[in-house]
Amino acid sequence: MELQVLVLRPIFFFFFFVFLTILQQSSSARVLTITKPDRHDYAASARWLVSQNSWGVLSTLSVDHKGAPFGNVVSFSDGLPEKGNGIPYFYLTTLDPTARNALKDQRASLAISESPLGTCTRDPMNPTCSKLTLTGKVKEFFLIDTTKKLTVKCFGLYLIIMFQLLILEGGSEEAEVAKKALFTKHPEMMDWPKDHDFRFFKLEIIDIFLINWYGGAKPITVDEYLHAKS
Amino acid sequence: MELQVLVLRPIFFFFFFVFLTILQQSSSARVLTITKPDRHDYAASARWLVSQNSWGVLSTLSVDHKGAPFGNVVSFSDGLPEKGNGIPYFYLTTLDPTARNALKDQRASLAISESPLGTCTRDPMNPTCSKLTLTGKVKEFFLIDTTKKLTVKCFGLYLIIMFQLLILEGGSEEAEVAKKALFTKHPEMMDWPKDHDFRFFKLEIIDIFLINWYGGAKPITVDEYLHAKS
Repeated sequence: MELQVLVLRPIFFFFFFVFLTILQQSSSARVLTITKPDRHDYAASARWLVSQNSWGVLSTLSVDHKGAPFGNVVSFSDGLPEKGNGIPYFYLTTLDPTARNALKDQRASLAISESPLGTCTRDPMNPTCSKLTLTGKVKEFFLIDTTKKLTVKCFGLYLIIMFQLLILEGGSEEAEVAKKALFTKHPEMMDWPKDHDFRFFKLEIIDIFLINWYGGAKPITVDEYLHAKS
Repeated sequence: MELQVLVLRPIFFFFFFVFLTILQQSSSARVLTITKPDRHDYAASARWLVSQNSWGVLSTLSVDHKGAPFGNVVSFSDGLPEKGNGIPYFYLTTLDPTARNALKDQRASLAISESPLGTCTRDPMNPTCSKLTLTGKVKEFFLIDTTKKLTVKCFGLYLIIMFQLLILEGGSEEAEVAKKALFTKHPEMMDWPKDHDFRFFKLEIIDIFLINWYGGAKPITVDEYLHAKS
């Protein structure tokens, strides 16, 4: 009895609280447990960066500054973590310059870093700390909106048929994918003001610039990137 | 004695490990203690973002992609934390597209977010999570380099005098400020390969886009920004 009270009980408390400490630590540093892909697998590395990050900088050509490059912090999603398709989707308001720029000139790039993930211990510009720039075109999606359908209907049957065909062919399905990808990763977006003209966009990737180790940019094609295993 | 062993000792262990847990937590979440400026002080808010962040995305006009906007993750510094001058300095290699782009066309912008600082609990695109884009021109500094001086000397006395005048007048003093600002915030840079043609650059700010609360971009002039109290 004496032994149990004097020695075993304090030992039990010690390990119990050490366990609690580790548990708390691991939950606060969740990102540190993410497994980084093999650095030789460039496509997987790029897809991993896109999948794990929730924000980046979308650069467009500024309307207000005569075509100067304008980078802007934006939230994005390519789907749920590790279930994405590699295509970055955005939910942008035309009250913000980036959406207005993109609607005028689609050329854009999305830059993201490994830094926010917490898996990189070196300087953010050290080549072992991965970074990715996806260059391409920002394209808007059109969701089926019954209000719009009815309005257009007033102007004739031909118009409504064309409009519906355009919507259905032009990507309403992918728009739903985009919406789900964004709203599951950024649930806050669902409550953003309806009168702020938020619209769905995607980046159609043309070129990939990836640094994930020494030796400069890695050779990786858009096809390899899009078909990489998640 | 019985009371001490049965009750007080476990209580002591409990508080001791709770204390340890808190200590560990506070050290891992250091950034959460940073004091954010009053949101009504736009200049201070912008300077705080630049001062506290160590990396951002520098957007230039791509030479390789016919003038498309190219964002790239870069480390920067405007001086030591809370002692900076508001001007972002960079240490870029011409092996990387960004420096080559900037040498061809100086138009650029630097975008940074509050997210990496850990002071923002909302979505990175929520207006309460500050973001900043500095638009301007990326300009290279020239440091006095005795090797270059000697090489140029071979081509005539006139050339060397002109060269030295250009260097001394053209900002060797600010180049030293840039070097100190970068190497103190990013000590790793001192060891980056000498044969990789790293050069010092600064962003000469022309326009400021700041979101630090609801209500769209905040009105802030470059002069207010540069003369804000650190």
